Amino acid sequence: MNTSEFIYLDHAAATPLDDRVLDAMRPYFSDLFYNPSSPYAPAVSIRRDYEAAKQTIAECIGATADELVMTAGATESINLAFGSVNGHVISSAIEHHAVLAATRQHDHTLVDCDERGRIDPQSIRAAIKDDTMLVSIALANNELGTLQPLRDIAEVLRSEREARRVRGNTTPIYLHSDASQGVGQLDVNVARLGVDMMTVNAAKVYGPKQMGLLWAQRHIPLTPHIVGGGQERGLRSGTENVAGTIGFARAMQLADKGRKAEAERLRELRDGLEKRLMGAFKQAVVSGHKKHRLPGHLHISFPSVDAERLIFGLEARGVLVATGSACAANKGTRSHVLTAIGLAPEIADGSLRISLGKLSTIENSAQAGDILIDVINNEIDRMAKR
Amino acid sequence: MNTSEFIYLDHAAATPLDDRVLDAMRPYFSDLFYNPSSPYAPAVSIRRDYEAAKQTIAECIGATADELVMTAGATESINLAFGSVNGHVISSAIEHHAVLAATRQHDHTLVDCDERGRIDPQSIRAAIKDDTMLVSIALANNELGTLQPLRDIAEVLRSEREARRVRGNTTPIYLHSDASQGVGQLDVNVARLGVDMMTVNAAKVYGPKQMGLLWAQRHIPLTPHIVGGGQERGLRSGTENVAGTIGFARAMQLADKGRKAEAERLRELRDGLEKRLMGAFKQAVVSGHKKHRLPGHLHISFPSVDAERLIFGLEARGVLVATGSACAANKGTRSHVLTAIGLAPEIADGSLRISLGKLSTIENSAQAGDILIDVINNEIDRMAKR
Repeated sequence: MNTSEFIYLDHAAATPLDDRVLDAMRPYFSDLFYNPSSPYAPAVSIRRDYEAAKQTIAECIGATADELVMTAGATESINLAFGSVNGHVISSAIEHHAVLAATRQHDHTLVDCDERGRIDPQSIRAAIKDDTMLVSIALANNELGTLQPLRDIAEVLRSEREARRVRGNTTPIYLHSDASQGVGQLDVNVARLGVDMMTVNAAKVYGPKQMGLLWAQRHIPLTPHIVGGGQERGLRSGTENVAGTIGFARAMQLADKGRKAEAERLRELRDGLEKRLMGAFKQAVVSGHKKHRLPGHLHISFPSVDAERLIFGLEARGVLVATGSACAANKGTRSHVLTAIGLAPEIADGSLRISLGKLSTIENSAQAGDILIDVINNEIDRMAKR
Repeated sequence: MNTSEFIYLDHAAATPLDDRVLDAMRPYFSDLFYNPSSPYAPAVSIRRDYEAAKQTIAECIGATADELVMTAGATESINLAFGSVNGHVISSAIEHHAVLAATRQHDHTLVDCDERGRIDPQSIRAAIKDDTMLVSIALANNELGTLQPLRDIAEVLRSEREARRVRGNTTPIYLHSDASQGVGQLDVNVARLGVDMMTVNAAKVYGPKQMGLLWAQRHIPLTPHIVGGGQERGLRSGTENVAGTIGFARAMQLADKGRKAEAERLRELRDGLEKRLMGAFKQAVVSGHKKHRLPGHLHISFPSVDAERLIFGLEARGVLVATGSACAANKGTRSHVLTAIGLAPEIADGSLRISLGKLSTIENSAQAGDILIDVINNEIDRMAKR
C-alpha cells in the first residue's frame, strides 16, 4: 500500500487509501462516471451500484441504507447532526474540534471527564435540562484513545425519555457519537452501541478522503445542512459521490471483516511498544484508560521533554508521529484534552500520540521503539547539558 | 479516457475524470496521504502541494489562492455564499435547483428571463431593495446553455452601490455566479466577468466529483457553513481534500489551456448537429440564445414527441442524452426552465438537451446525428400509426 521510507505511527490523523479500495473505485472515475440521476440505463446502473454500496456500509454498522446520509466527511456529518436540533446540547470537554465548534452554536453544557479521559454517565445525567435535545460523545477520544461508556450514556437518555413522557415533555433527546476513530478496531454496531445518530469518516479507515456519513434512526427528523437538488432523500444535496461511496463501502467491508484479528494484532504491537518505552523511561506517563482504550493507541508523555523537538528528531530518523491531535497540531496551543484530564503542563508538553494501524508491522514497530528510545535519550541528554 | 461503447451527449450532467487528472491525483491516495495539518516534514510538503494547487486554480480564474474556499462541490459552495448574507436576495426563475433552494431560505425575488433564457439586467435593477445583499445568476444556464450578461448585471450592482453610498445605506450587495457549466468553454476570469463571488465544480470539467470551490473577494465576510477544526481560514472545516484539490488544479489547467480551441471545436460539432436535425425535422425548435450560448450546448425540442421515449430509444442505440437537467430528470416534473421561457407543454415535453464535450468527435457526432434522426423518425411514425 505505502512504499514510503517512513515508519508511520499516526494512523489516527490520516490513513492511506487501501489498494483494494482504490481498485473498487477505479471504474467509477472515467468509465462509469455518469450522473446517477440521469435517466439512461448506464446511469441507472450506477445509481444501483451506489445504493448497493450504501447497503454494504449500512450492514457494517447494523443499519439500513435509507438511514444513511452520505457526506463529505465527519465534520459535515457532525454539522448535520447538530443542525437538526434547536435546543440545549451536551458534549464533553475532550471532544474533537468539530464537535466543540458545533456545540458552541447551541446553548450547551460541556461535561468533564476523569483523569483517564473517561466520561461518567452520571455527569451527563446531571447536565440534562428540560430542553436538552442532543448528547454528543465520541466513541473513542482521538488524542487519548479512551473509549466512552456509550451504552451507559444511552441508558441515561432512555430513562430521561421515560421521565419526560411521564412529565408530558415532548422534547426528543438523541445520542450522537463520532465513531470515526473506532471503525476497524471496535464493534460499531449502532444497536449495540445504543446510539441514535453516528458519524463515520472514510478517511480514517483506509477509505477515500472527504467521504463520511451520518447514520440517524429513521424517526429522527434531520434538517438538511446543504440544500439544492434534493439528493439523499432531500437531506444532503449535491451530485452523489459515487466513486467515494463505492470506496467507502469496500473500506468498511475490509475493516469489518478483519476487525478482531487486527485489533488483537495492534494491541500486541502497542503493548510491546508501551512496555519498552516505560522500561526505558521510568518517568514516562501513559494517559488514557488502561483497559478501555483503542487497541492501536498509545498516548505517552516524557516529562520536561519538548514533544515538538521530539517530532522533528523522530522525523529525521524516519518516524512519523503526532503531538496532540493533528487538527490542533499546527496551532501552537496546548491540547484541550490534556488540560481537561489535568495533566501538568510540563508533562503535557512532552506528549506523543502514537497510533498504530495497517502500516504497522512487528518489524517496524520494534524499529520504531529503538528510534524512539534513542531520540528521547538524546533529547534528555541535550537538556541535561544545557 | 472512456472506452465505453456509448456516444455520450450529456457532458453538462457529468464528465469523466481525465486520465491526466487521475495521474496527478494518484500519488496522494496511498503514498502522500498524510494529514496536511500534521507537523512532520512529509505532511508539511503535502500542505505545500495543496496550497500550490489552490494557487494554480486561482490563476485559472484570475484570483489569488487566499480568496478560495475549497468545498465538496458546487452545491456546498452555493450554500456557503447564500449563508453569508442575511438580507434580501435576487435570483432568476431559471437557476439550478441548488441556487433556487438556497434562494428560498431568504426573503427573495426571482426575476424572469426572456424566451431565449436571457436575463435583462434592468429586471435585476428593478428587483433590488434597500436590503438586497446578493444577486446570484449562473454564467450559463444548465438546460438551455444561454449565457447571461454578467458584466451588465455587475454594472447594475456597481451603480446601486454608488447610490447606497450617497444615501448612507451601508448594506453591501454582491454578485455571485455559478460558472460550473462554463469552465473549459468560456472565459471565467472573475475580473472580466465582474462577479464578487463565483462557484466552480470540478466534476463538470473532467476533474474529481465532490470537489468545488467558492471564490469570494477578499473583503467579503463569509460565514462558515461547516464549522470544526478551522481549515480554509476557518471558513470550511474538515481535513482538506488534498488529492481532490490537486486533481481540480490539473483539470482547471487543462480546461484553461485548451479553452479557445475546444470551444471552437465544440461549436462546429454542435452547429453541424443542429443543422442536420433542423434539416431533418422542420417542426423542431431550438431553445436558448442563438449567439450567447455555450458552444457545446444544444437544446432542441420535437413537438408532440415524448422525450422520455426518445431517451430510451436512443440509449438502445448507444446514444446517451438528457431530457431537461439531470438533477430534475428523475422527478417526473416538467422543467422549470422550459416553463419560464414559455415553451408550450407539447414542445417542452419533446425536448432533448445535447451537451458535447471531450468525448465528442467528428465521427461520433455524425453517427449520433444519424441515430437521432432515425430514432426520432421511428417515434414520429409510431405515433402516426396509433
